[in-house]
Formats: sequence, structure tokens, C-alpha cells
Amino acid sequence: MQITVVGLGKMGLNITKQMLDKGHQVNGFDINTSVRESFSHANLTYLDDLAVLKDASDKNLVLLLLPAGPITQGMIAQLAGTLKSGDTIVDFANAQYQVSIEAANQLAAVGIDYHDCGLSGGVHGARYGACMMLGGKETASKDLLALLSSLCVANGFQAYEGIGSGHYLKMVHNGIEYGMMQALAEGLELLKEQSHYQYDLAEVTGNWEFGSIIESALLSNIHAELAKDKELSSFTNQVAASGEAKWMIQEALEEEVAVPTIALSLMKRNASLKALSFSNQALSAMRYNFGGHKEF
Amino acid sequence: MQITVVGLGKMGLNITKQMLDKGHQVNGFDINTSVRESFSHANLTYLDDLAVLKDASDKNLVLLLLPAGPITQGMIAQLAGTLKSGDTIVDFANAQYQVSIEAANQLAAVGIDYHDCGLSGGVHGARYGACMMLGGKETASKDLLALLSSLCVANGFQAYEGIGSGHYLKMVHNGIEYGMMQALAEGLELLKEQSHYQYDLAEVTGNWEFGSIIESALLSNIHAELAKDKELSSFTNQVAASGEAKWMIQEALEEEVAVPTIALSLMKRNASLKALSFSNQALSAMRYNFGGHKEF
Repeated sequence: MQITVVGLGKMGLNITKQMLDKGHQVNGFDINTSVRESFSHANLTYLDDLAVLKDASDKNLVLLLLPAGPITQGMIAQLAGTLKSGDTIVDFANAQYQVSIEAANQLAAVGIDYHDCGLSGGVHGARYGACMMLGGKETASKDLLALLSSLCVANGFQAYEGIGSGHYLKMVHNGIEYGMMQALAEGLELLKEQSHYQYDLAEVTGNWEFGSIIESALLSNIHAELAKDKELSSFTNQVAASGEAKWMIQEALEEEVAVPTIALSLMKRNASLKALSFSNQALSAMRYNFGGHKEF
Repeated sequence: MQITVVGLGKMGLNITKQMLDKGHQVNGFDINTSVRESFSHANLTYLDDLAVLKDASDKNLVLLLLPAGPITQGMIAQLAGTLKSGDTIVDFANAQYQVSIEAANQLAAVGIDYHDCGLSGGVHGARYGACMMLGGKETASKDLLALLSSLCVANGFQAYEGIGSGHYLKMVHNGIEYGMMQALAEGLELLKEQSHYQYDLAEVTGNWEFGSIIESALLSNIHAELAKDKELSSFTNQVAASGEAKWMIQEALEEEVAVPTIALSLMKRNASLKALSFSNQALSAMRYNFGGHKEF
């Protein structure tokens, strides 16, 4: 297999570095060529044009580490016309599983095998060992399974039957993540705002990080930030969301499964983005109208 | 210090075993004497009557591992009349911090030093190394801090200023736990009920347990149960709650801090306890009345 990483952002570059550490020859491609100045390696070849993959003597394995949506879909359309029959694409985007199924069908028509793969563990995971959920197990070669598994921490790799099953799992994983983060955040806000004790939140999260029932990667993450700045003053009141929790909640509605705390976690983020909330204005207006309460 | 453990249930007995492993002489007391038949050790002395502590030549350190509420409070009242001035009690119950402050005041009046201590990590933690949050740091002796710290995993022990600060932290810890558990549970229900893929939930949780962002002690716990039985068929639809999340939400109301997903997590548990929900009946009744929808 000739390995090509398409998308050399934080995740793609670190997956590339991990493969180089493990002795692989890797092609790298990114429309932004500035990465070439910041990193080079004897076994890394930057490609100027993906068209050269058509002439590869081995089968191509293309790892896509691009943002989900139009960018990934555009690249898949381009690769459908570039790769050879028998080549393989693994798509690590946080994509909607339905979109991944469409991509698989589009590529199958020209003999290219497509796999969706959920990728967790952040930048550090990409660099030193990630968690991966691969879809389309039934067509995955032993070589592909061995390569991806080698890029994960022990037991962190699993393949699942069905195209889209990897991205579906990542979608649910991220929905769970939203809920767990929100619960931690609510507890920390109470500790910061309460009037009884003078807690050092770096100390508290450090305490909980070892041996408690809420021990978790997310707790370690917030501990690391609180250890740098107890006030988290470089962070604002706005919390963005990147799609997966929304898709998970939409899917839960379709399947008539109740995911109330995950839905609330996303809606609380959405509400945080508005400096002026019309629902708050409407509540104040009602209080003023029936009770004469003035908050303006 | 002469160490006495009062309450030899799952947590108390395992803390006792850990101290015995570490070479301590320990007195044990429980109103249920059946534990004496199941466990004995050369350095463990079962007490028939706590009155003997009055005659101890050393200072007493009494570790209380009793259920919060009347049982702990009754024992504290008894110990107030039994222990000597200069003795120390550490209360590991999941108690309300206000109740712990009252206990401290009651005991201070007779010269006994009281510390509340949050204890996390379950039975395994009590046996092999726990996470502890000790209140009343300002009066804790070096010996006490060294003993408790030795019963925790590395970095798992921390003392905080103020009586009640340990139980307050454990209350918030448990509220966070409710929210994190609920998020995991919602995700798993969607994976079980969805109509697209055949997931093995033991496989999925095992996959996420290593290297993912939702890696956590709680995920490991549910993985262990799913590995035994993917249907969780020995578990019912009812989920009880043991007080701390309720107190945390009450405290958040007092402090006017929003903890919506933790509140929802507790209310979902409360709703699960009712086979017949009057709110569901009322909704059905409204649908029938205005739309003729029959669900009976």
C-alpha cells in the first residue's frame, strides 16, 4: 500500500508523524503548502498534485483528515476521478453517517473501497496513539486493520460491520462527550460561585483526577487548564458546537429515543452564543407586564 | 493514635483491610457482629462496646463509615459521651455538609476534633487506594493527614480549609457523577435502539475505554457490566438516588447557579421509580380531550 494523507492540519500532521515514527513511507497533501516549511522528514513526500496517485505501482491508501462537509465531499469527488480501482479511502472527518454512505456508494461505482473512521483522543491521540472506530469491517483488508490498529493505544481500535457505522459511533461518542462536559462544567460553576468555602479549583480537579468515580479524560483536560489559570480568563462565555451532537439528537428524535441531558447540553451551548437572548427578553417583558418587575 | 473503624460494611471493612495490609493495629466495631465470622486478622480487634475507648492509653482516631443521617448522627452523639478530649473522628458518610458542621460543633464542645471526609472510588478504592476530600484542614494533625493520604492512590488525597468542605465537595462530585452517568446512559440507549447497525455494546464501550475523549472510570464500569451481559437483563427500569445530587441541586438553587443537566439527571431517576406517571396520564388525557387520541 502507498499511504497518502490528505489534509495536514493538526490531526492529519500528527497522524503522519506517528506513521513516520513507525517507519512508514507517507505522501502528504494539503492545499495550504505552508506546512512544508514547518516539517520535513526523509520518508515524507509532499505531493503537488494528487493526479500522480493514478500512476502508483502499489495500491493507494488515502487517509482523509479534512473538515466534514463540502471540503471532504469535494475531495472524495476529486479522488473518485483520480484513484485506481482497488484503491482505498479512509475518511476520518466527523461526518454524518448518511453522507459517508453516499460517499461509499459513489466510490464503489468506480471500484474504490471507502471506510468511515471515527477518531477520538485529540491531537495527542493522533500523535501518540488514538481511539478509532472503523466502519465497513466486511471489506477491510488485514493490512488496513493492522495499520490503523497500530496508530491506536492498546485496545483503542475496533472495526464494525456496515459503512457509516464508524461515523455513527463517533456521532454518539461526541453527544455523550457534550453531556459529560456539561455536567463537569455545572459542578465547577457551583464550586466557584458558592459562598461557603474557598476552593482552589485546580486543587479540587487534581484531587478528583485520581481514584474518584468521576476520573476521566475530560476531568484531566479541565484540570490542566485550571492549573494554568484558575479563572479560565482566556475563555469566553461563548461555547460553539461542531455538529455531531446535533446530528445525534436529530437521530434520537427519528428513533424516538430520549436523550434529554445531551439535548440540553447542546441547547445550553447554543444559548451561550447570543449576547442578547430573545427568550430572556420575553421573560422579562412578561414579568414587567403582569408584575411591574423592571429589569431594564 | 489508636485507630477504630466504626461501621464494617463494604466500605468500612475494605478500608480496614487496607490499613491492616499497611501494618496498622485496628479496632473494628459494627452492631452487626456477623462480619466477625467472615474475616479475622491478627492486628484486628473486634470491640463489643465502644466504651472501652475511654480507657485507651493513646489518643483515639475513630473512622466512621456509616450511612449518612440518623445512624451517623446517633453514633456521633454516642461518641461525644464516650471519647476523650483530644480524640479525633473522621466521618466518611455521604452527609450534608450542614449536618457535618453541626456534628463538629457538638463534638468541639467536649474537646473532640471532627473532620468530614468525602470518599470516592467505590469498594475497590477503599480496598486498594481511594480518592479522599478531607474537610477541616486547619485542625488536622500531620499523623492524620499521613494516614489518610496513605489510603489513597497517588495524588488522590487533598485536605481543604473549613469543616464541611470535604462533604460539600463530595456532594458536588456526586452531582457531576449523576450527569456524566446520564449522558453515557442516553448514548448507550440510542446505540441499542437505533435501526441501522448491529453494535455489540461491550465491544463499543471497550473501544471507547482506551484513548477516547470520553475515557472514564464510569465508562469502564459500564463496560465491565456489558461484558458480563450485553442486555443488562439483571438490571431494572428503576434507578434510585441516594441524596447527594438532590442536596447539590438545592444548594445550586440557594446560590442561584444553573445546574440544569444535573437536575434533569436526578429528575429522570425519580421519574423512573414510578410504574405509572401522573404526568404521562395527564398528557394522554389532554391529547384525548382535544384530539380524540386514544392511548388506553
